[in-house]
Amino acid sequence: MLSLDSILAAQERIRGRVLVSPCAEAYGLSERTGGRVALKLENLQRTGSFKERGACNKLSLLSPEERARGVVASSAGNHAQGVAMHAQLLRISATIVMPKTTPFIKVDNTRKWGASVVLHGDSYAEAYAEAQRIRTSEGRIFVHPFDDEDVIAGQGTLGLEIVAQRPDVEVVVVCLGGGGLAAGVLTAIRAKAPRTRVIGVQTSAMPSMQRSLAAGAPLSVPPVRTLAEGIAVSTPGALTFAALYHAIDDVVTVTEEEIASAILFLIEREKTVAEGAGAVAAAALLAGKIDARGKSVVATVSGGNIDVNMLARVIERGLVSSARLLRLTVNLPDAPGGLARLAALLGDEGANILEIVHQRAFAEASWPEVSVDVVLEIRGSEHAARVRRRLATEAYRFH
Amino acid sequence: MLSLDSILAAQERIRGRVLVSPCAEAYGLSERTGGRVALKLENLQRTGSFKERGACNKLSLLSPEERARGVVASSAGNHAQGVAMHAQLLRISATIVMPKTTPFIKVDNTRKWGASVVLHGDSYAEAYAEAQRIRTSEGRIFVHPFDDEDVIAGQGTLGLEIVAQRPDVEVVVVCLGGGGLAAGVLTAIRAKAPRTRVIGVQTSAMPSMQRSLAAGAPLSVPPVRTLAEGIAVSTPGALTFAALYHAIDDVVTVTEEEIASAILFLIEREKTVAEGAGAVAAAALLAGKIDARGKSVVATVSGGNIDVNMLARVIERGLVSSARLLRLTVNLPDAPGGLARLAALLGDEGANILEIVHQRAFAEASWPEVSVDVVLEIRGSEHAARVRRRLATEAYRFH
Repeated sequence: MLSLDSILAAQERIRGRVLVSPCAEAYGLSERTGGRVALKLENLQRTGSFKERGACNKLSLLSPEERARGVVASSAGNHAQGVAMHAQLLRISATIVMPKTTPFIKVDNTRKWGASVVLHGDSYAEAYAEAQRIRTSEGRIFVHPFDDEDVIAGQGTLGLEIVAQRPDVEVVVVCLGGGGLAAGVLTAIRAKAPRTRVIGVQTSAMPSMQRSLAAGAPLSVPPVRTLAEGIAVSTPGALTFAALYHAIDDVVTVTEEEIASAILFLIEREKTVAEGAGAVAAAALLAGKIDARGKSVVATVSGGNIDVNMLARVIERGLVSSARLLRLTVNLPDAPGGLARLAALLGDEGANILEIVHQRAFAEASWPEVSVDVVLEIRGSEHAARVRRRLATEAYRFH
Repeated sequence: MLSLDSILAAQERIRGRVLVSPCAEAYGLSERTGGRVALKLENLQRTGSFKERGACNKLSLLSPEERARGVVASSAGNHAQGVAMHAQLLRISATIVMPKTTPFIKVDNTRKWGASVVLHGDSYAEAYAEAQRIRTSEGRIFVHPFDDEDVIAGQGTLGLEIVAQRPDVEVVVVCLGGGGLAAGVLTAIRAKAPRTRVIGVQTSAMPSMQRSLAAGAPLSVPPVRTLAEGIAVSTPGALTFAALYHAIDDVVTVTEEEIASAILFLIEREKTVAEGAGAVAAAALLAGKIDARGKSVVATVSGGNIDVNMLARVIERGLVSSARLLRLTVNLPDAPGGLARLAALLGDEGANILEIVHQRAFAEASWPEVSVDVVLEIRGSEHAARVRRRLATEAYRFH
């Protein structure tokens, strides 16, 4: 049974093997929300996410006979690394099944811990089925990513740490996919700080637990691509559903745009790197979906494993949506000096030219004009409006 | 006099007003160096850097009469924000002189704390001169960014925290510009942990303290542009020089390329955002300029105020230098299907096409060929070599 005792026992078991992560003041989030917000930095764990807690507890509880049989898990992400790392520390053989589409870096990061990786199928569901086949044929113990009492108890240690690090906490915000973290943290918080609210955050792309709680039974949503792949779970667990039903204070959702903005905000203001799923708690606060005013709030940054190419794109998208990158197509007379005059005007307005592409053959402009695509670094929407006004005043045609 | 007592007194004075920043396990740096490395995350301070420590201590020590006169400082960066914030908390009028070239965001972040910002001159030297003029004409107290005993004592509190958080620390690595942080930390560490080595890191672009220590007297180096603008100091302070001369264990330098790589490493492996000056300690460890093997090491991440546009560019540069972005120019027959065949080949090799530009008029290729610039996301230098071999096998001309 999931209980405070099982979480306290898990805390003893994982001590020294899983980081007691910092619960750091988040000045930017506090300013923006009017609350006193701290971030529980699970992205600083060795494998970059909280998943180690559940994996470490589960593996530590296996009997010598079970350890000898080895374990198998299916995951394209953080659970894979958490299981692989702690299996290696405990000298347990681990097989991880990943979809064939898994990025190389994640395969590599899992193999690094000595796990044998099986690439199978095109979706998580197919990888899961293969893991079940291996479980049966090889007699390995299956380590479920969330629907397992020992895994949930391990995740619950996060709740104990939050209460110890922030005894006055009034609201705890956690990411919510399968529900393992939320169920564990909720159980710990209810026992240790019964008046503290616990709120789960899902991506609006796959709000499986939110819908299940509303329907009164676990139901499925179709898999879709999302920035928050770490919480892209089609069907909540039976155990996690039972733990959260009529118990969790609220479940809210955030959009892809809100997640991208939150990743950028965390980088820029809180100096910390979150993956999509790791940024949803902050996203819910920033988007005003949780009222933090005047309250002591802890939001989890549950993981930081974001591909840096993806990160560069998210930063760029965030800069565009906050009007600090501006893309314009401007028509110029096809004559010497035209481009120089435009560049001088933009410089004069304090806009930094990052890219400029001169179109000729395929330009929309009618001869004898040419069209130029420019990407400008600017200071926000007011600045953008000023640049546009100036272009209009000087009789440029642009869009 | 700079002493342990003055640093202990500073610690009392700044308590509750400056963050006791986390000293977090740095698993990536530990793996790479063979040491047990932790990062002192001063980037999590409210204004994003350690500079608050010195500013808070200095301002707290002003007499009521001095507070009434107000303060003036010259800085384009973190010192400006540190002074402005703590002046506001202490209700002291603050004027900050910044060079006219200071990015808008830094001006804004300083004004946000209620300071009046004067934009003057094109260099730090000119801003400094203007601050001296204001000091005389308005009778304000000048707050030096580093060459001031109260400022140095404030920075020294970082050393006390490191020893408290990591009692077994054997090597402390700090960034070194004017020398305020290094002088304060060295004094604290010598008193509290006399066997611990303290190593300063400068940018090789402006190694003013390193040269001064070698010469036996403070000397100047010419100002140059560097990613580590926060430690771009032409002339060390007299007090800081005296504190470090014959006392600091070593001063090493890192190149711009090493700084850029370290920023990327900190993002990718340690999930933390450092500005250039904030990344030099990690850069020195990563570049093997400090031997960390088997040792308990604390490296400071002294600040995280990096412009996100700059960050996106640093990430991109880092990806190129670690062969995860590859730019190629490929010649194609100017006929239907040519591009499709190339795209298919690249996809087949697992290279993700991020950008493709078809050149016609200005291409290097001789008619009837066209030249195509492609930017590919790849997995490292081995993968790059494989893509190149495949192109060669299929008789493409490229470079």
